[in-house]
Amino acid sequence: MADWDGLRSRLEQCDQSHLLQYLDKLTPEQADKLYLDLNGIDFEKANQYFQKCNVNNQTCEKKDSCLEPLEKDSIGSTTRDAAKLVDWERIGMTQISEGKVACLLLAGGQGTRLGVNYPKGMYNVGLLSHKSLYQLQAERIVKLQQLACKQCGGDKAVIPWYIMTSEHTKEQTVQFFSDHAYFGLHKDNIMIFEQNTLPCLDFNGKILLDQSYRVARSPDGNGGVYAALHQSGILDDMKRRGVTLVHVYGVDNILVKMADPVFTGFCVEKGADCCAKVVKKTYPTEPVGLLCKCEGKYQVVEYSEISMETASKRTPDGNLVFNAGNICIHLFAVDFLQSVCCSHEHELIHHVAKKKIPYMVDGTRVVPQSANGIKLEKFVFDAFQFSKSFAALEVLREDEFSPLKNGPGADRDCPHTSRAALCDLHYRQIMKAGGRFLDDEDTELPLIPRRRQSVATSQGLCEVSPLVSYCGEGLEELCAGKRFKFPLHLSTDEKETQQPPMKKHCLDTN
Amino acid sequence: MADWDGLRSRLEQCDQSHLLQYLDKLTPEQADKLYLDLNGIDFEKANQYFQKCNVNNQTCEKKDSCLEPLEKDSIGSTTRDAAKLVDWERIGMTQISEGKVACLLLAGGQGTRLGVNYPKGMYNVGLLSHKSLYQLQAERIVKLQQLACKQCGGDKAVIPWYIMTSEHTKEQTVQFFSDHAYFGLHKDNIMIFEQNTLPCLDFNGKILLDQSYRVARSPDGNGGVYAALHQSGILDDMKRRGVTLVHVYGVDNILVKMADPVFTGFCVEKGADCCAKVVKKTYPTEPVGLLCKCEGKYQVVEYSEISMETASKRTPDGNLVFNAGNICIHLFAVDFLQSVCCSHEHELIHHVAKKKIPYMVDGTRVVPQSANGIKLEKFVFDAFQFSKSFAALEVLREDEFSPLKNGPGADRDCPHTSRAALCDLHYRQIMKAGGRFLDDEDTELPLIPRRRQSVATSQGLCEVSPLVSYCGEGLEELCAGKRFKFPLHLSTDEKETQQPPMKKHCLDTN
Repeated sequence: MADWDGLRSRLEQCDQSHLLQYLDKLTPEQADKLYLDLNGIDFEKANQYFQKCNVNNQTCEKKDSCLEPLEKDSIGSTTRDAAKLVDWERIGMTQISEGKVACLLLAGGQGTRLGVNYPKGMYNVGLLSHKSLYQLQAERIVKLQQLACKQCGGDKAVIPWYIMTSEHTKEQTVQFFSDHAYFGLHKDNIMIFEQNTLPCLDFNGKILLDQSYRVARSPDGNGGVYAALHQSGILDDMKRRGVTLVHVYGVDNILVKMADPVFTGFCVEKGADCCAKVVKKTYPTEPVGLLCKCEGKYQVVEYSEISMETASKRTPDGNLVFNAGNICIHLFAVDFLQSVCCSHEHELIHHVAKKKIPYMVDGTRVVPQSANGIKLEKFVFDAFQFSKSFAALEVLREDEFSPLKNGPGADRDCPHTSRAALCDLHYRQIMKAGGRFLDDEDTELPLIPRRRQSVATSQGLCEVSPLVSYCGEGLEELCAGKRFKFPLHLSTDEKETQQPPMKKHCLDTN
Repeated sequence: MADWDGLRSRLEQCDQSHLLQYLDKLTPEQADKLYLDLNGIDFEKANQYFQKCNVNNQTCEKKDSCLEPLEKDSIGSTTRDAAKLVDWERIGMTQISEGKVACLLLAGGQGTRLGVNYPKGMYNVGLLSHKSLYQLQAERIVKLQQLACKQCGGDKAVIPWYIMTSEHTKEQTVQFFSDHAYFGLHKDNIMIFEQNTLPCLDFNGKILLDQSYRVARSPDGNGGVYAALHQSGILDDMKRRGVTLVHVYGVDNILVKMADPVFTGFCVEKGADCCAKVVKKTYPTEPVGLLCKCEGKYQVVEYSEISMETASKRTPDGNLVFNAGNICIHLFAVDFLQSVCCSHEHELIHHVAKKKIPYMVDGTRVVPQSANGIKLEKFVFDAFQFSKSFAALEVLREDEFSPLKNGPGADRDCPHTSRAALCDLHYRQIMKAGGRFLDDEDTELPLIPRRRQSVATSQGLCEVSPLVSYCGEGLEELCAGKRFKFPLHLSTDEKETQQPPMKKHCLDTN
């Protein structure tokens, strides 16, 4: 039974009574919807969030004064520490073979900048196989499970995959995996759950209405994962399965090494409760967030928050002092996740994003031309501050990071660059395995593609199915001494090569 | 009087008699042309070149074993040695004010990859001003001359500009400068000269015919500059003018700092006869040629010539061992140029480029589908081996290097990236001078453009005329405390902003 008086009184106390302004024009069904919608909101909290985030006094305050770089001994490197890679991988494989390692995908974003109305993970960047990001990730898990079984024996090498969606992406994601038979994974090992939303506010802290009977909402940021893990019972599922380490990553990085055993082993060896992969920032104004310490706590400083002076600081050996670029690939101990979710979640601040938010004006829904309000978001990396033993692993960007942010035609982080990054990586893997490529004129191509272009652009596409190789291993017997021409798709069977496109969009072909 | 018998006999001796195979079908005028063409060729030399370059045995021979990095004390850096910049600039300005510094532009390329049939320097990448690369370069010289006069007094601050063209680019270049009144420079201080051509050969060393009465030719590479400087009297002109230092650069780098006083001062302080600007190579397969030493001599190793193992070597501080990336910006002492041109030019080897070269088959001109022959080229950097005192200055790529290699739509080094690079540089300069930019929603933009995109892509264009500022100096009084919106063109007058497009092509607009 709706308690309208109670609701009205709470709204008045919190100065949000405008939310009922259209009530007398609503149908009974709409009024019910509005009641349910509003009744689920903690208006006091919403007001607190707004006051804390201090939206109207956002000077571009520089945090410079308190910043310190990460301690040297907490940083490993896949290049400088190349001698340790075999050990780290072995340790990681053992963990995987014992069922202790899971993946957690952050996939609640709406893909606005990419320009699609479906989940980013379903996007096809135009590979020869037409595989979506979701499929690439799934197949990497399939292959890694096989490798772990083979190397370590046993049959427990299951890597549970937790997928955080939002109200915008959940339904389609569930359907997509079902339609594609979970890409060879066992249905029970894929857990799709949903993050929360928060009401959108105007610049005075008033909650905006999207319709006369519905509040404007947006997902609560990738840091919403901590609340969602707890509420949805995912944390319990992890513990029930005996998972101790969780790889967290964003959906849009086509190169992501799912449950990377090297990263796993590094984290285990360091005894870290919280790890991040980083890439080396190489010039002062490179647009990448920085992992550093501030008053003793680990955090990521966004590139818009740092001054040119701090960004330009160099060590005597010529590197940037602050050079640990965050790429949203993290590894958390489950105990650490537990403590964040259960004890610290409320300490995570909301970040403010000014946005164009459709809203009601005089009974009409208006899509504004400029920002009219704010979305509140938590960030996944804000939990780093609670780490007791943090470590970072520096990896090569060209091998591990190429995010899909923008639609076709952008100057970076677009379908074209994602496809080129994967193609170039596979080209190098095949070359390393002793394969060679011939160009149109039957001349052998060098390791580094000519003309400062990607192989994908200057020559043609090549692709190695994750089912053939997780990260280059096992290619020798397929490639050594062989000479290939473009396009080349190394796959497990004909079907994999010839399957029809899943989506007809994408194609930022050049 | 044509000595056909002599020619025929020389051809026979050199096994090139096929060049006369169409003689009996030529008109008298065509026969005369062919005679002149052939008579100018030293067939013995052509054969020697072919034998030396060993075209049919080009295994991708790795030079790794002999390579050493540059000595640390021969490398300066605009970032690590920031404290010295003021001194270097002062020294450089003094040299300029005394008329001792010249520019030498390498502009003989045919622009095939860019896809235009006119000189690259005439290209307009789509700046607000619609300025061509030639105009940007000219105006930087104008401004730098003014600065040198102002800072050092006197009226000798002339920077002679030598422009090496080829038979493909000379005429149009001369016309272009004349049509635009030399962009404010004095006509007498721009010297346009032409590099040589070499006959194109088939894979057996036979000279190819482009027409029944004409040999197929191509420019002799940017290293042809040494022969051309000597033959065209440019070297004498330099000496007559009292020039002692010559900045050599490629036409396609939109960010090039013409006659950079900092680089000049660095070179003077080092007492170097030969200097190169370099950018730091940051990952093993980055496509950039490397400055290094081989058997005690300085040289550039191309990225296709190096093995993955060598390319991946790291120093203990995590940098690549071989990390001095060549960007084709060099500074030569005139004495050094003199010794190369007069004593060593013949020691420079020819590099081989396999190409599709139109040629005559059974009386018909054929445009081949795959490579059918070779072009022989010398490289400007091959002269480094003769340096007695070499030095390199490491600069920031984002500030100084963005080459225009490819046409619109390529994934890098294209009109879009050139425009973005210049726009972003000017954005940073304006920010540094205390200016601020507002986005569509009147929010101040941070120093580092959002969304990992260039300002040009994500916000709009901004441009500072070289006549307003050579490299950011003097912007404080125009920008400090001001808030700007895009597009922004800081120029000396209305006309500069509103002049009509010079060329209607370019426009890789996104």
